[in-house]
Amino acid sequence: MGRIKKMSAEMNLKSRKKRAAASAKSAGVDGLLVTHLPDVRYLSGFTGSSAALVLFGGRAVLFTDGRYTAQAKIEAVGSRVVIATKPVLAAACEWMEAAGVRRCGFDAAHTTVAALESMRKVVSGKVRRGMFVAVGSLVAALREVKDAEEIRRIRAAALLGCKLFDGMLMYLEPGLTEVSVAAELEYAARLAGAEGMSFETIVASGMRSALPHGRATSARLPRRGFVTLDFGVVLDGYLSDMTRTVHLGRALPGERDVYDSVLEAQEAAVARVAPGVTAGEVDEAARSVLRRVGLDKYFSHSTGHGVGLEIHEGPRLAAKQTQALEQGMVITIEPGVYVPGRFGLRIEDMVLVTATGGEILTPSVKAWIEL
Amino acid sequence: MGRIKKMSAEMNLKSRKKRAAASAKSAGVDGLLVTHLPDVRYLSGFTGSSAALVLFGGRAVLFTDGRYTAQAKIEAVGSRVVIATKPVLAAACEWMEAAGVRRCGFDAAHTTVAALESMRKVVSGKVRRGMFVAVGSLVAALREVKDAEEIRRIRAAALLGCKLFDGMLMYLEPGLTEVSVAAELEYAARLAGAEGMSFETIVASGMRSALPHGRATSARLPRRGFVTLDFGVVLDGYLSDMTRTVHLGRALPGERDVYDSVLEAQEAAVARVAPGVTAGEVDEAARSVLRRVGLDKYFSHSTGHGVGLEIHEGPRLAAKQTQALEQGMVITIEPGVYVPGRFGLRIEDMVLVTATGGEILTPSVKAWIEL
Repeated sequence: MGRIKKMSAEMNLKSRKKRAAASAKSAGVDGLLVTHLPDVRYLSGFTGSSAALVLFGGRAVLFTDGRYTAQAKIEAVGSRVVIATKPVLAAACEWMEAAGVRRCGFDAAHTTVAALESMRKVVSGKVRRGMFVAVGSLVAALREVKDAEEIRRIRAAALLGCKLFDGMLMYLEPGLTEVSVAAELEYAARLAGAEGMSFETIVASGMRSALPHGRATSARLPRRGFVTLDFGVVLDGYLSDMTRTVHLGRALPGERDVYDSVLEAQEAAVARVAPGVTAGEVDEAARSVLRRVGLDKYFSHSTGHGVGLEIHEGPRLAAKQTQALEQGMVITIEPGVYVPGRFGLRIEDMVLVTATGGEILTPSVKAWIEL
Repeated sequence: MGRIKKMSAEMNLKSRKKRAAASAKSAGVDGLLVTHLPDVRYLSGFTGSSAALVLFGGRAVLFTDGRYTAQAKIEAVGSRVVIATKPVLAAACEWMEAAGVRRCGFDAAHTTVAALESMRKVVSGKVRRGMFVAVGSLVAALREVKDAEEIRRIRAAALLGCKLFDGMLMYLEPGLTEVSVAAELEYAARLAGAEGMSFETIVASGMRSALPHGRATSARLPRRGFVTLDFGVVLDGYLSDMTRTVHLGRALPGERDVYDSVLEAQEAAVARVAPGVTAGEVDEAARSVLRRVGLDKYFSHSTGHGVGLEIHEGPRLAAKQTQALEQGMVITIEPGVYVPGRFGLRIEDMVLVTATGGEILTPSVKAWIEL
């Protein structure tokens, strides 16, 4: 890392830690124990698989093990690094007791019952009572709004996804197995520098397109029918997520109509995105278009979700969700229609919530494509 | 699935559920709530991403959501399937209360504090006290010993791994990026039918071979130096895991000696494998070889782990572990030596514990290779 880039990274991390500490203070705790690895990475920069981070009294202390001695020092700029010789959770709790933490906030959604028990066992009896306080997913809440550096990385991941999809348009043809389509896509992603895929690539063709989560199988692409590609790449730690559905051969009457309705629903939801609009209102924008044409009963999932260091982050875009969108959130908009035993399709973009509306980060073509 | 194959699958599942119910009974509970997805798959056959399984009174009830209606009925042979319209965990707990479960065992290592709280909220006040009992990882313990069907699948995955490694020997050459090596390997895996990789492929070359967990980077393979490949494939749900280290160009004095010591350590540990031998004894078999030549201080991790539906299962092969090996366990044996700033290497096989010893499932060549 160059010196300027390193300073800028350190400033981002400092600002994130400061906001996390402020959240912890608002939640009534004096220390914050962070163990969910994407949260640790977000606050400290450390990407290893064994870590606990403590924020206390303006300090950040990262606990990891001997495998990561060199890596932690390079990555966790601005955090003190402790190489633990016991489990990192125990090391962190011992340190907190010695440092005088009196109320330690932890994330109940990412702490197992067994982990909490082991934490309690480490600290001495006199501080144990009231030491550990479930404070909700404070860091996950911060992570919903992306900073400039995160948006830069997400943009790059999303654009790589688009480039890969465009390449697949040259490749798709009847008779290929779904698995070989996934293989080709993932190979191209790797060669383009992706660290991996965001999730198991979905290639669902023909009747299988009616399965919302049709992982690629050995089924062959049909001469006539839909092919849904839902995939994402990991770049610099950040994930992309997009879906496009194309049609092989001439469409049957009705298929094109359903496609146009899903596209209209998708575009209506994208158009609804703006700061202050609730997640439920965006969901309803998509759902009401499909309701008007009697297809809403086949739209069996929610409209979207936040995405960043993890594939499913907040906010959740589903019916009746009252959370308001905020500038800097990155969400997916992905309505779909699945007619059991016949066919299905989904269209998905990543959308950045801007000061005034929504900006599509995945500008691949969405118009009807017959190959 | 053919009729015979389906009947055989159902019998396997039945036997597993029976053993899980017996474990639960021994642990003093009348119902068992299973939420860790690999455990759910092991017991019910269901592979979806949203599931809770309840064993009670000789019955098995699988709770999932509307996305999986068709899939659950096909996969979960022998379990009753309930499509829940609320979160699956809540649906399962409501059902248990109605069915008369009085003490429900759960796995504290795979249940978050938040999940336990939500479980408690669902059941009514009069049964809440004492309803949920942490019983340890009963299903994980059963999964350590593989049945014939599992061994068949693991064998197939391990052999595919070997075939892929052999192919890579033709491909490796100085100047390739580590990432392109990973890309080639993963592409070949996909085309050969793998559902995915067991974990992020490790390609660590030159000085980077000194990092035990060197994920593939844009670094280029050197003209002279080690290249460590550590990877696995997923086939029929089961994972393989193997590591080989080859040398590009002529080795420097000392490199070959270290390789020979690691190989001797690895073979000594494999030779020690047998039912009744403890995990710690197998670890010591590898470690003592390296100690004799003063290399044990560079062997910074444990010797191995169980593998099956997940990449890290029990038993854990580390110093002082007193757990005895049992026939049917599948473990990795993977000592390594990492000299900081210079080079490192690791050699890893999957080994099946047989009635009398250990059978290597990954028979790729381990002799010194200079490319």
